[in-house]
Amino acid sequence: MPDPHPAVGLPVEQLDTPALLVDLDALEHNAGLMASRCRDAGIAWRPHVKACKTPALARILLDAGAVGVTCAKVSEAEAMADGGIGDILIANEIVGEVKTARAARLARASTLAVAADSEVNLRQISAAAVEAGSTIEVLIDIDVGLHRCGVAPEAAPELARLAQDLPNLELRGLMGYEGHVMHLDPETKERETAASASIIGQARRACEAAGIPISHASGGGSGNYRFVLQHDPRGAWTELQAGGAVLMDLTYEEMGVQGHLRALAITAQLVSVANYPMVAADAGWKTTGRHTGLPAVVPPRGMECRGLSAEHAHLEVDEWREVEVGERIRLVPHYSDSTILLHREIHAHRRGIVEQVWPITAAGALR
Amino acid sequence: MPDPHPAVGLPVEQLDTPALLVDLDALEHNAGLMASRCRDAGIAWRPHVKACKTPALARILLDAGAVGVTCAKVSEAEAMADGGIGDILIANEIVGEVKTARAARLARASTLAVAADSEVNLRQISAAAVEAGSTIEVLIDIDVGLHRCGVAPEAAPELARLAQDLPNLELRGLMGYEGHVMHLDPETKERETAASASIIGQARRACEAAGIPISHASGGGSGNYRFVLQHDPRGAWTELQAGGAVLMDLTYEEMGVQGHLRALAITAQLVSVANYPMVAADAGWKTTGRHTGLPAVVPPRGMECRGLSAEHAHLEVDEWREVEVGERIRLVPHYSDSTILLHREIHAHRRGIVEQVWPITAAGALR
Repeated sequence: MPDPHPAVGLPVEQLDTPALLVDLDALEHNAGLMASRCRDAGIAWRPHVKACKTPALARILLDAGAVGVTCAKVSEAEAMADGGIGDILIANEIVGEVKTARAARLARASTLAVAADSEVNLRQISAAAVEAGSTIEVLIDIDVGLHRCGVAPEAAPELARLAQDLPNLELRGLMGYEGHVMHLDPETKERETAASASIIGQARRACEAAGIPISHASGGGSGNYRFVLQHDPRGAWTELQAGGAVLMDLTYEEMGVQGHLRALAITAQLVSVANYPMVAADAGWKTTGRHTGLPAVVPPRGMECRGLSAEHAHLEVDEWREVEVGERIRLVPHYSDSTILLHREIHAHRRGIVEQVWPITAAGALR
Repeated sequence: MPDPHPAVGLPVEQLDTPALLVDLDALEHNAGLMASRCRDAGIAWRPHVKACKTPALARILLDAGAVGVTCAKVSEAEAMADGGIGDILIANEIVGEVKTARAARLARASTLAVAADSEVNLRQISAAAVEAGSTIEVLIDIDVGLHRCGVAPEAAPELARLAQDLPNLELRGLMGYEGHVMHLDPETKERETAASASIIGQARRACEAAGIPISHASGGGSGNYRFVLQHDPRGAWTELQAGGAVLMDLTYEEMGVQGHLRALAITAQLVSVANYPMVAADAGWKTTGRHTGLPAVVPPRGMECRGLSAEHAHLEVDEWREVEVGERIRLVPHYSDSTILLHREIHAHRRGIVEQVWPITAAGALR
C-alpha cells in the first residue's frame, strides 16, 4: 500500500497556495440529496462529471446511489474507466476516426453509451466498434430547444432505426439537454423545462409510431433538475444527468439550486498589501477560472473580491480590518466547471483537515 | 535518442481534435521582431512566458536574442529551469514558507530574481535563501498606476536598503507593470506609459538620493511595448518584459500590437450540423479559453463564431456554404493566456506540417 499523500492530515491552512479544496461533509450532503430526490421521483441518477473530472469524487456519487456517470468527451470517459468506473455515458457526439476508435476501445471493458445526431456519425461509431470488437450504445440526441446539437423529434425515427440496424451498435433511447433554460427566472424555467420534456415525448411517440419502442431518455442539468423531477409531463425523462451541483458554487446559487451546501473552495494568501485597502491574493482567473462573476471571499470576513487578474484576486478590505502579507483567505469560485479543469489535485477535507488528495485525471482540455 | 512524437510529420488536419497549434514561421518572425526592436532601443528583452508556459518555446525566444525569461510564479520558473533555462525573473511577490523555500532551492542552480513590495516578504525570501544556501536577486516592485502590487516611489529606498542589507539577497533594481494601460486608446496609452516610466524615474531618484544606485528597471507588456521602446522618458526602463505577443492573438490585435503575425490556433472539427446554419465544433471555452471576446474562424471561410459553450464553438454558416460532420476548421483564440494553460502540448508546425510537439510543462493552475 502506497504511503498517503504528504498533505493528508494537514489543516488546509498549511497547504501551499493556491490549493483547491472540497468539503467532504458538504459533498456527501449534496450527493445524498440529489440521489434521494431522484429516487423519490422514480428517475435514475447519472451525474455529469464534466466539472469534477475526478474518478475518486465520482466514486462518492456512485456510493450515494448514482447508476453511472455522464461525461462530456472521450478523455473524461477514459479517465473514469481508468479510475474503475464501468458505466459511462458520453452525452455528446464523438466524431472522427481517432476519437471513435478510442471510444470503441473503451467500450470493450466498460458499458459505454454516446449521443448521435447524424447518419455520418452513426456509421463512424459503428465502423469503429466493429473494428474494436465492442458494442456501443446510442442515445439519439434531440434538440429540446438549445439549438446546438440534436435533431428535431420528427428526425428521430430514421436515426433510431439506423442505430438498431448498424452492426455493433445498440439503441438505448433518447437524450436532450436543456442548456437554454438554466439562467431563466424560475417561472419561465419551469415552463421551458416542461416544453423540453414535451419535445422528448414527441420524439418518443414518433419512434413508437415507426415501430421503435423507446424506454429510456436522459437529460436535465443542475440548474433545472428540480423542475425535471417535479413536473415531468407524461414521464418523458427516465434518467437525470445533473451532477455539477454536488460541488455547489455561486453559479448554481444564481440558478436557484436549493438545499445544497457549498463544497468547493480555494485556499490562498495575501501577497501584497501595499495598496491597502485594495490587497492582492495569489488566486487570479488562472486559478479560480474566468466566468460571468467573481468569487466570494468566505470567512475571515471584512473583504470583498472586486476583480481578478491572471494571478491575483483584487480584494477590497473593510476599513476596520487589519491585514498582513501571508494572511490566509478562502475563495468560493463562481463556477466549478471553469475552476477544476485548471488544477491537478483536489484536497478533500473534513472540517478543515485534509482526508484525501485526489488527482484530477481528466483536467485541462484533453481531447 | 528517443523516437520522435508520433504526430511529427503529420499534416495538422490529421491530428485528433481539438489540438493546439503554433505556426513556427509566425513565431520566429514575432520573436525576431521583438528582439530587434529592443536591440534598436538599447533595452534588454526578457519575454514573459506566463502565456506559453513551455520551455521549448521559450528557447526560441532566447535564440532570437532574449536575455532570459520572465515568469508569473514559482511553478513556471521551476518548469523553465527543468527545461534548461538558467536566467529567470519571477515578476511577482513570492510569499509563504513553502513557496519561498522552493524559490530558494531553484536559485541554487539558476540566476533567479523576484519582485518584492514588503518588509515581511523580503525577510521571508532572505530566510529561505539562507536556509537553501542560495542567493536571490530582488527587484523592488513599484506601483506605476495599476494599484495591484508595488509600493509608491517614496517607499522604494527603505525596501531597497533592506534588500541590500538582508543576508543572501542582492538588490538588482526596480520593476513595475503597466497593466492598467493595455486596453486604452493609443493616444492615452502613450501618455500613461510615459507617466508610468516617470514613476519609475521618481523611485530611482529617491533611491539614489538615499545613496542606493539603481541601474536596472524591468517592465512593459505586449500591449504597450512600442511606447515603452519609443518614448521612454529619461531612459527609465532598461529591460522589457513583454512576451505574450510572440504568439499574437485577437486580444493583442485589439491592443494595437503592430507587425506581428498570428501564430496560435486550434484545429477542431464539426461534430453536429443538425441545426444548420448554426453548427457545432468540438472546441468550446474549455479548449479556447474564456475571455472578453470570441475566437475567429480562419480559412476555410464562410463561418463565424457566435458563441462558446464548455465543449462547443457555435458557428454560423453563410448561406452559400455547405458543411458536413467531421469537416476541419481552425480557430484563433481570443487570448493566448487563457488558452494555453488548458492544454498539455503544442503542435509546432511549419506550413501545416507538424515539426515538433512541445509539452506545456507549466500548464494549469500549478502553484
